[in-house]
Amino acid sequence: MEQTFEKKQAVVLLSGGLDSSTTLAVAVNQGYFCHALTFLYGQRHQIEIDASRKIAQSFNITDRHRIIRLDPQLFDSSSLTAGPPVPLDRDQNEMSRHVPSTYVPARNTVFLAMALAYAENVGAFDLFIGANAVDYSGYPDCRPEFIQAFEKLANLATNAGVSGQKISIHAPLMNLNKPQIIQLGLDLGVDYSLTWSCYNPSPDGIACGRCDSCIIRKNAFQSIGEVDPIAYQF
Amino acid sequence: MEQTFEKKQAVVLLSGGLDSSTTLAVAVNQGYFCHALTFLYGQRHQIEIDASRKIAQSFNITDRHRIIRLDPQLFDSSSLTAGPPVPLDRDQNEMSRHVPSTYVPARNTVFLAMALAYAENVGAFDLFIGANAVDYSGYPDCRPEFIQAFEKLANLATNAGVSGQKISIHAPLMNLNKPQIIQLGLDLGVDYSLTWSCYNPSPDGIACGRCDSCIIRKNAFQSIGEVDPIAYQF
Repeated sequence: MEQTFEKKQAVVLLSGGLDSSTTLAVAVNQGYFCHALTFLYGQRHQIEIDASRKIAQSFNITDRHRIIRLDPQLFDSSSLTAGPPVPLDRDQNEMSRHVPSTYVPARNTVFLAMALAYAENVGAFDLFIGANAVDYSGYPDCRPEFIQAFEKLANLATNAGVSGQKISIHAPLMNLNKPQIIQLGLDLGVDYSLTWSCYNPSPDGIACGRCDSCIIRKNAFQSIGEVDPIAYQF
Repeated sequence: MEQTFEKKQAVVLLSGGLDSSTTLAVAVNQGYFCHALTFLYGQRHQIEIDASRKIAQSFNITDRHRIIRLDPQLFDSSSLTAGPPVPLDRDQNEMSRHVPSTYVPARNTVFLAMALAYAENVGAFDLFIGANAVDYSGYPDCRPEFIQAFEKLANLATNAGVSGQKISIHAPLMNLNKPQIIQLGLDLGVDYSLTWSCYNPSPDGIACGRCDSCIIRKNAFQSIGEVDPIAYQF
């Protein structure tokens, strides 16, 4: 806490997916000394954890990347953990109509709360999250009003807020669509071959190409005329 | 989620201390079907975990009491975990002057976020926390504006909020002083011999009588002419 850094510190939520990896690139590009947090919360597959490690390594922050284990009991009604199966082959209209079963209860609230605790420990006042309201797949905790409400909370909840420091929650992808996010990441040098997006991989770790996340990703690469560097089953 | 309950469900944060035990009694008394969450976050002593078990048992909710393990890395700058020693022998003026070193970064934010996730899983819309702004020892995340901000966040963050349900954060002790809290608990049948408050117990598990928490508790029992049923070293 008493250390003086040349650079402002930030805590970045890093899932190993496309959005969070791009968000980390934005924070690094803005000159922040970045810490990254990845959460293990009973996901069906560990591939995205491995992806987060590779991404952290690609940004040379392996020693400031923490994998935080959360008690999976808290999240067990979601299809990303132990609930109903992941929906497949939906078009983007269907996706936007309902909050999908891949929604994990209060996930971003829990992740940001943890990031806030961690930020207080390391003396950071800036948190980065890859939340996105455009291609956000219907999650309520990806909307700008959620981010604003969390920022307000953070400044009431902490020593930093009480002592007149301002805690900022940055969601630099909020108003970008998926093609714009990918273009931004490519411009900032993100290696998307390291990122993981699929909700429903094969046993040998190949993206399904049919879940919401794969469909959005594939369409986005296609729309900007870029090749998605990962393999798909379909 | 699809179950129908005669009673409304609630999720209660239960530390095993005096305030949270009284809060559980309030929720039970208001007719809620209560779930209780206790967090293990690298506290120096496990006595309060044992206390939480005894309290849950005394309210017949052992099967709805979960002990949730949190990654202690998130909290390690606090004196309750691995930071500087607990301050002793302070008077209540001193306590209220500064946020003390026993402050755990963003603790209530993390605990409420977890409770919110759990509430979504069990289908509860009511969360109870023993936060208190009167004898609150200077913690920023015990103030009414913090609770209000969290309630607003909760309704933006969740399916419940999006689908028109109202999530409520109840802090029934907010405006009570410690003597009033104890009187309320005694009226509701809380067995305070089961509760634990001390930040700094002896190796054989006797309350120190000298930390902020012991001093506030002892003074409060004395002021209402009741005997504190636990033993103290001093």
